[in-house]
Amino acid sequence: MPSPGFVPVDATDDVQALNVGLLGYNFMAKAHTNAYKKIPYIFWPPAARPRLHAICGRTEERVAEAARRYGYAGYYTSWEAMVDDPDVELFDNCSAHHMHVEPSIAALRTGKHVICEKPMALTAADARRMRDAARDAKTKHMCGFNYRFVPAVRLARDLIERGLLGDIYHFRTQYLQQSIHDPDRPMRKAPDPASRLAGSQAILGCHAVDIARFLVGEPATISALAPRFVPERRGPDNTPVRIEWDDASIALVEFEQGAVGTIEASRVATGRANSLKWEINGSRGSLAFDLERLNELQVYLVDAPVADVTGFQDVMVTQANHPFSSVWWPHGHIIGWEHAHINELNHLIEAIMSDRDVAPYGATFEDGYRAAVIAEAIAESALAGHRLHVRYDA
Amino acid sequence: MPSPGFVPVDATDDVQALNVGLLGYNFMAKAHTNAYKKIPYIFWPPAARPRLHAICGRTEERVAEAARRYGYAGYYTSWEAMVDDPDVELFDNCSAHHMHVEPSIAALRTGKHVICEKPMALTAADARRMRDAARDAKTKHMCGFNYRFVPAVRLARDLIERGLLGDIYHFRTQYLQQSIHDPDRPMRKAPDPASRLAGSQAILGCHAVDIARFLVGEPATISALAPRFVPERRGPDNTPVRIEWDDASIALVEFEQGAVGTIEASRVATGRANSLKWEINGSRGSLAFDLERLNELQVYLVDAPVADVTGFQDVMVTQANHPFSSVWWPHGHIIGWEHAHINELNHLIEAIMSDRDVAPYGATFEDGYRAAVIAEAIAESALAGHRLHVRYDA
Amino acid sequence: MPSPGFVPVDATDDVQALNVGLLGYNFMAKAHTNAYKKIPYIFWPPAARPRLHAICGRTEERVAEAARRYGYAGYYTSWEAMVDDPDVELFDNCSAHHMHVEPSIAALRTGKHVICEKPMALTAADARRMRDAARDAKTKHMCGFNYRFVPAVRLARDLIERGLLGDIYHFRTQYLQQSIHDPDRPMRKAPDPASRLAGSQAILGCHAVDIARFLVGEPATISALAPRFVPERRGPDNTPVRIEWDDASIALVEFEQGAVGTIEASRVATGRANSLKWEINGSRGSLAFDLERLNELQVYLVDAPVADVTGFQDVMVTQANHPFSSVWWPHGHIIGWEHAHINELNHLIEAIMSDRDVAPYGATFEDGYRAAVIAEAIAESALAGHRLHVRYDA
Amino acid sequence: MPSPGFVPVDATDDVQALNVGLLGYNFMAKAHTNAYKKIPYIFWPPAARPRLHAICGRTEERVAEAARRYGYAGYYTSWEAMVDDPDVELFDNCSAHHMHVEPSIAALRTGKHVICEKPMALTAADARRMRDAARDAKTKHMCGFNYRFVPAVRLARDLIERGLLGDIYHFRTQYLQQSIHDPDRPMRKAPDPASRLAGSQAILGCHAVDIARFLVGEPATISALAPRFVPERRGPDNTPVRIEWDDASIALVEFEQGAVGTIEASRVATGRANSLKWEINGSRGSLAFDLERLNELQVYLVDAPVADVTGFQDVMVTQANHPFSSVWWPHGHIIGWEHAHINELNHLIEAIMSDRDVAPYGATFEDGYRAAVIAEAIAESALAGHRLHVRYDA
Repeated sequence: MPSPGFVPVDATDDVQALNVGLLGYNFMAKAHTNAYKKIPYIFWPPAARPRLHAICGRTEERVAEAARRYGYAGYYTSWEAMVDDPDVELFDNCSAHHMHVEPSIAALRTGKHVICEKPMALTAADARRMRDAARDAKTKHMCGFNYRFVPAVRLARDLIERGLLGDIYHFRTQYLQQSIHDPDRPMRKAPDPASRLAGSQAILGCHAVDIARFLVGEPATISALAPRFVPERRGPDNTPVRIEWDDASIALVEFEQGAVGTIEASRVATGRANSLKWEINGSRGSLAFDLERLNELQVYLVDAPVADVTGFQDVMVTQANHPFSSVWWPHGHIIGWEHAHINELNHLIEAIMSDRDVAPYGATFEDGYRAAVIAEAIAESALAGHRLHVRYDA
Repeated sequence: MPSPGFVPVDATDDVQALNVGLLGYNFMAKAHTNAYKKIPYIFWPPAARPRLHAICGRTEERVAEAARRYGYAGYYTSWEAMVDDPDVELFDNCSAHHMHVEPSIAALRTGKHVICEKPMALTAADARRMRDAARDAKTKHMCGFNYRFVPAVRLARDLIERGLLGDIYHFRTQYLQQSIHDPDRPMRKAPDPASRLAGSQAILGCHAVDIARFLVGEPATISALAPRFVPERRGPDNTPVRIEWDDASIALVEFEQGAVGTIEASRVATGRANSLKWEINGSRGSLAFDLERLNELQVYLVDAPVADVTGFQDVMVTQANHPFSSVWWPHGHIIGWEHAHINELNHLIEAIMSDRDVAPYGATFEDGYRAAVIAEAIAESALAGHRLHVRYDA
Repeated sequence: MPSPGFVPVDATDDVQALNVGLLGYNFMAKAHTNAYKKIPYIFWPPAARPRLHAICGRTEERVAEAARRYGYAGYYTSWEAMVDDPDVELFDNCSAHHMHVEPSIAALRTGKHVICEKPMALTAADARRMRDAARDAKTKHMCGFNYRFVPAVRLARDLIERGLLGDIYHFRTQYLQQSIHDPDRPMRKAPDPASRLAGSQAILGCHAVDIARFLVGEPATISALAPRFVPERRGPDNTPVRIEWDDASIALVEFEQGAVGTIEASRVATGRANSLKWEINGSRGSLAFDLERLNELQVYLVDAPVADVTGFQDVMVTQANHPFSSVWWPHGHIIGWEHAHINELNHLIEAIMSDRDVAPYGATFEDGYRAAVIAEAIAESALAGHRLHVRYDA
Repeated sequence: MPSPGFVPVDATDDVQALNVGLLGYNFMAKAHTNAYKKIPYIFWPPAARPRLHAICGRTEERVAEAARRYGYAGYYTSWEAMVDDPDVELFDNCSAHHMHVEPSIAALRTGKHVICEKPMALTAADARRMRDAARDAKTKHMCGFNYRFVPAVRLARDLIERGLLGDIYHFRTQYLQQSIHDPDRPMRKAPDPASRLAGSQAILGCHAVDIARFLVGEPATISALAPRFVPERRGPDNTPVRIEWDDASIALVEFEQGAVGTIEASRVATGRANSLKWEINGSRGSLAFDLERLNELQVYLVDAPVADVTGFQDVMVTQANHPFSSVWWPHGHIIGWEHAHINELNHLIEAIMSDRDVAPYGATFEDGYRAAVIAEAIAESALAGHRLHVRYDA
């Protein structure tokens, strides 16, 4: 027992708990769980304490290990069962792409708040069903476009909203990775037939699309290419596999407010690890960003106080007066990729606890739906060879 | 008179002279004249000594001053007269865009070698007439795509030819300037009606198109946008001027050899001074370049000798074993924008004196023609809203 | 209660707990606590589960809040009491600089493992007492030189140990911040008399010293300056305060193995947020690093496979084969400043649980002592105006 | 003969000629001659037309070739003869280091203007003799510290003079090259006994010293190291050569006006081609520069118009309102290393023709002398192991 002088802390306090049920146990599940664990002491006092109630996955051995690893109170091997669990208040869908739709809709229908990772769905029709279910529910819904919660991205949005860029002319973005650049390397696992359409938009491009909408607004038209450079790859067992996805996609976009831009995504960009770059040019200023240096925002402003000192400024977005930054570390003590997820999930929890909208700074199922519409427009334009108008169903 | 010991140098030597007649006296004329003056002592011994025979321009006072400034033996105020001058061996067309066609054709027909600045012509039809005239002539012809002669660009071509990048998947380029980003600033001079079509392709984009062709090969299809953000500007006298040019253009390109890419040009890219950037991703490596740091080439090669040391290399392309570099300064003593013109015109003069082809490393009137075809395809696709096949007349 | 299908997880498993007692509740306490909370699910399976047993601070209101915030089981307001608590296995000293010595020694004497933040002590004599106490104890001891656990820094050490740089000629480092650059801004709090000597070495420079020793080895001689640019500042209440610390220090160093270098630290480097830069030049290669871009290591190797492709490589140190990186996120998903602490404390816990040495990759009290000796040598050389030999007591 | 319409230009005009006699025909001679040839059409109308009267070198074959190559009217093989030539008005000393002293003094005594390349002399005593001779002469004198004429360097000086940096705290500079990094590579030529002292200061460091004085002012004290890493190298014939020079030098400097700094020069900095970097931190702002990207100046100003947009600006110093820039090319069309020499020699010629001082923006023999004093102080402090006061003879 503790020595004299030790004052035990009463763990019960005014902070409400919020029970989380998480579907999935891989990469994204790790990022989300990490967020739930950090929120209560980083955003202090927290809006709620996320309680790791249950985690769910198909393979019992792995889900049980994940539960132990992350400290979930228990686990499910059936998502239907977890959705039926009345103790789950926030349903977090970090499962495989083709598992985003039905569990999320079911969770909404049982009155849970839902966050679903991107891509929200592999077809616009599915995404619309999710959006409609979210609209019918009284709960909060979020689509996991975490890059909105990178401080530099949010600062960009703020600067634009304050009019510092003037009229926006240009937006260009590339989300480049090199995950499958080598045509001769066998795939780590055979592509799941249900995910066979999961090309560059699903994997990477929807992030770029969301950033475009977040910063510049709605696309009006799309003209696109979606190349498949390697039509046949080798499976894990070295047998040939016919590839049905695109390796990359590039879209020309006219935005409703007048800007034009490009949105590119590639998984065969050799040498690029996780490079989501974008640049915006407006009549009064420009911005540039690279996710691999996510603590920095390049800012050019026409209105310079010293006439011979003009140029892009390398703004280290870690000052206490920068978005999300006061809760983290002192200026210059950089944050990493995972922190956008933490900022994002805290935004959701604050919206839940204070019944505020997730939009406009957080992405909702409406945003997830719109990204899916644009993904289909990209594929359709690539196939048809002409410019398409983007149309969202009301 | 010189003191004893002074040994006078006999200026006559084995090096042949080559008489130059230059049309124009502005920015490009300065860059070309500078090149002619430097070639004889930089490329030593030179293939020929360019002799500044005549310069030609409409305004006598200005052309006479240019002749004195640059050391031309004389001047003309009529290009027809200069074209008729049998002493002109190399006709250099640095005039306004709409003056590129007829003087160049006339010079070819009188048996002169011709270099014409970019854009070679404002229509593909005109460019084709120039190309055909060049084909009929026995002389050398060059289109002023000087960026082929930036050492880093030529090194890029070399690395690609040596197969170091493997199969090329992606090419993306932007040529960004901010010359007319401010819609409220009056134009310096009213646009010449004859140049009214001189939009982003003529001013900037054709350079990007030529780099694309130089590094990746022929485009097969084009899908494009060509926005006019500011439909009305103010003239030098503050009166409104209706704008007929585009402010920017962006083309999606499928290349014949399988790569896809974007070619963008903008004159309203606030904060970008003279930024011609491009990136190439291939199955075995990638390259990236920025004209504002033209001494550097970013190179990523998959085949790395040390497994945990991989990344883009910042290659300072000033080593003696780099293209064009041994004649200049020691490693790390950087060259500037003007040096590409010097390397280019020396290439032309060597081709003339040794009767070698200007192609493939130098751009010919065929290349100028093809850039014009692509410029029209961009405009046409932008108007029509669909993908077009690029077709060159034989 | 959970719905059917819910499988509760037995929280008791084979992983041992390790009781932590933490002194301090500010910046560093947050960073360390964050580490203890993340280790069990990031380094999976963990060597031990750190148990947040007690936190200690003088101001009860604040320490009680910190305990609730971070989930400590209880708190102390007397460090002597916490040191006497037999349940504390690992004593973590994150208190103010002048509180590093006695609590750490007392904890060692009661048989606890101890980590003490930098600077270990404000005098070499005190640091020696700590080192000697650590030597006498059977427990593990660590000095919080967390930057050894930045993946790029450890990769640098690995590359050097593998001989890839050849003979090392040069090391130069600057740790630059701008915390007190403005002579007119009142201080946030009056300097504690006990910390009045805490100048640039204590605040920043000891990190630079430790990196120098970690990468290049022991300094043999020191020649230094330690300027006080602003001899009088204003206190929080605007009254003048005479300043006794240096604002910066710069040391010329000869290393025992033959290299020469500079070690600089400044708190008045306007515009530099948290910039710890260093560069190493050896006969076969060079390295360069900047803490503000801590995921990257610049590497130049003389032995290049392609003769015209040489240059500094921008290595993104996030690959699975990079130090500490396999446990974090996929390649290119960058980590932040806090992650070095997590890697560091996991190293300590692994050393404790498997009874391995903290050295050479982790810093011990011997390293903390040596940094203090060097700090005094810098101050002494600055005062004396001559070169000094660095001498450590055995 | 030219066709009708050709108007011959009368080469005689109001611009005065200035006869140049150049000693040397290697690297620097090429850079200077290039400058003389460009000045008349770049700085238009020029203050004078440099006339390439004579070039001088020991080896007749080579000097004769240089004369033909560069267009000198004649040549000398004896510098004494050239100095006696009354037609030489400007004597330009680009010879080997140990040939700087006597010819320059002799030329001053015969009433010539003199520019002497750096290092002005290998000893302070010699440099003082040169300075005294220059003081006695009525003519202009310049020491070839060309980097003062890089636009970004001059802009830096302007910003400092305008007080934008506030009080200067820190200056740090490194001039790094890799010319002799490899201890196993034979030297290209055996070191000339007369140049045996030409170590890092003579080769590189004096440039860094001059930049320090140009931007921050006079050094008051010096503490230094001057290592010889490779005491024995191999000569061109593979025989061992004992090395008497230092491979590098590093000086700690206290400036008279209160700043402290480091001045480092190394010829064994593997991977650094021609990297002269410096950074200045003041109470209101900071500057950073790298000669390998000489068109850019990094500028941080505390007084920012937008509170959350602060950071180092990457100023491309090519705007028409930047120093020396209006005569060159449009904004963003970068200049190279050679242009600093052209700007420098034009400054000298303007000083000569209008009888203005070369100082303070150009370096004089006084500056050359002071650099030599500091070089000796560095060597002396390195040997003595203590801090020295810098003392210039009046």
